[in-house]
Amino acid sequence: MTIKDIAKACGVGVSTVSRVLNGRPDVSPEVRERVLNMVEATGYIPNNSARDLGRSQTDTIGVVVRGMGNLFFSRVLNTIIQETDKVGYTLVPRFIDSDDDEVKAGAVLEREKKLRGLIFLGGRFDYNPEELSLVHVPYVCCSFTNSFGSLAEDAYSSVCIDDFRTAYRAVEKLIEHGHRRIAALVPSRADHSISELRFEGYKAALADHGIPFDEALVVECGGCFTMPEAYEGMEDLLDRGCDFTAAFVLSDTTALAAIKALQNRGRRVPEDVSVIAIDGLQISAYTTPTLSTMVQPAEEMGRESVKLLLEVLKGGPNRHIRLEPAFREGASLRSL
Amino acid sequence: MTIKDIAKACGVGVSTVSRVLNGRPDVSPEVRERVLNMVEATGYIPNNSARDLGRSQTDTIGVVVRGMGNLFFSRVLNTIIQETDKVGYTLVPRFIDSDDDEVKAGAVLEREKKLRGLIFLGGRFDYNPEELSLVHVPYVCCSFTNSFGSLAEDAYSSVCIDDFRTAYRAVEKLIEHGHRRIAALVPSRADHSISELRFEGYKAALADHGIPFDEALVVECGGCFTMPEAYEGMEDLLDRGCDFTAAFVLSDTTALAAIKALQNRGRRVPEDVSVIAIDGLQISAYTTPTLSTMVQPAEEMGRESVKLLLEVLKGGPNRHIRLEPAFREGASLRSL
Repeated sequence: MTIKDIAKACGVGVSTVSRVLNGRPDVSPEVRERVLNMVEATGYIPNNSARDLGRSQTDTIGVVVRGMGNLFFSRVLNTIIQETDKVGYTLVPRFIDSDDDEVKAGAVLEREKKLRGLIFLGGRFDYNPEELSLVHVPYVCCSFTNSFGSLAEDAYSSVCIDDFRTAYRAVEKLIEHGHRRIAALVPSRADHSISELRFEGYKAALADHGIPFDEALVVECGGCFTMPEAYEGMEDLLDRGCDFTAAFVLSDTTALAAIKALQNRGRRVPEDVSVIAIDGLQISAYTTPTLSTMVQPAEEMGRESVKLLLEVLKGGPNRHIRLEPAFREGASLRSL
Repeated sequence: MTIKDIAKACGVGVSTVSRVLNGRPDVSPEVRERVLNMVEATGYIPNNSARDLGRSQTDTIGVVVRGMGNLFFSRVLNTIIQETDKVGYTLVPRFIDSDDDEVKAGAVLEREKKLRGLIFLGGRFDYNPEELSLVHVPYVCCSFTNSFGSLAEDAYSSVCIDDFRTAYRAVEKLIEHGHRRIAALVPSRADHSISELRFEGYKAALADHGIPFDEALVVECGGCFTMPEAYEGMEDLLDRGCDFTAAFVLSDTTALAAIKALQNRGRRVPEDVSVIAIDGLQISAYTTPTLSTMVQPAEEMGRESVKLLLEVLKGGPNRHIRLEPAFREGASLRSL
């Protein structure tokens, strides 16, 4: 069975089959499904894993990591590597860009490496069953879940914090300290992803405390959570000239970049602006000022993801685990 | 062939064989060698990879990472993962503690996963041929080389910076800024590892500029490069009450922790103490003060390690690649 046979059987060109197998977006859903069904039915294995033909059953687990520079993901990934290793499974990690499609990447990895299971480290929150039909092995969504999607609860597993509630708690912490003019730095406010959920948590906390929502205090920095993006985002906010005494920033590293932008513009943290974030990296306990942040249990998240996937592989039910972040007080927050 | 057969043939107990296969240190070198030779001669595969029996030849590469919390290693590891993936190889990462033996861990991983090649990410600098005879596949030392050891140059490959010279350049930078009372924070000054090489570079820079070496200005913080260790190390130095205007710290994260300790004791950086480090993480360009640091080309290091290993796997000669760090000026350094 060669790629030509697959193409012929599907009535499409070889390059189309190749595009499907490489998870490229420029193929219609119908053709994609036809090709993948044929691939499955015939047991065809793409060339680059023909070398693995000898294996009929593997104990290989894949992890698709969305974004390379994310320090929080690195911590989780390292735990996933260690935990998978401990139980004798082989872990195959694959990095994709933060705007790539992790489901397609997972489906390709599944076929290439004959995976038994998959962990998605980072992803969108709006999967539908059709999309996920590309993946034929059990999978765990690590650090996110399907809040905006239509997957059946028992069709997948997830391990994450409650992003809405965690953002709500962070912003409430600012309000408890007397702040009412609270800026929000988020990658996007409507991307059906972690950013939207946390932004909604921000809005809900304001609303529940009778603080009117002010468009002018929201900055969308771009989808990649990078420090340069957050730095520029804070500069934009300052350029608008609007007044605020506190900022809620989506992650530790972007909060540090935002603090840097504030300081470079002559604003002191926390004297002029208080800052709170979500993540709880070790390094942000050593910065000046130290960061007030909601600590995500990174090791636990990695460990539970592996444990849950193994349970499902052994026939257990899909489950959804919610971990509770803890507030870590830093010097970036003061009372008005 | 079972583990019992191996034990019987070697005249040892099953638990001894198991200890050897798990890379445990509590086995004499003679017994270890006897067992490993028998394992090799008989083609015995430990239980936990019996499932891989079907594979006679794999395209699997292992990477043994020494220490889990190291942000610099995380960056290099992520690049190694990505680059191995790009060329269609399967990468199997394994983490060990920073005081574990990476050679034994590599040898075990080689057998368990039937590796074709190995990358050591972090390790000692004093290997001898006997130790490395445990490893039967080509390997690349990534981020270190065999400065204190006795391996033949053509017996292994390495990709790293020149640690002695990089430390020398960093300390010279402090001297050029007028500093003469320069403290050194290192994990250890004589561990035959990266720390000793960098400490020697520090001493050589002082000597070449006619500055007498002062024991009192050296702190050994402990072998793990952690931020808490460096924080305490700087506190110890301050407790000694000795006078210094600058500090050379071994890595970015430990330098940030040392700066924190200085600030918490009322010393301003750089007004009272200048600080320089080696690594060049992105985050240390966003701290207050930003860090003056020798930037190691992390991505290049990972990429070249994979490239070199593949060359050797295809029959190319072992080589040693030295990468050149670039100085990144930060606000942690001032002229006296």
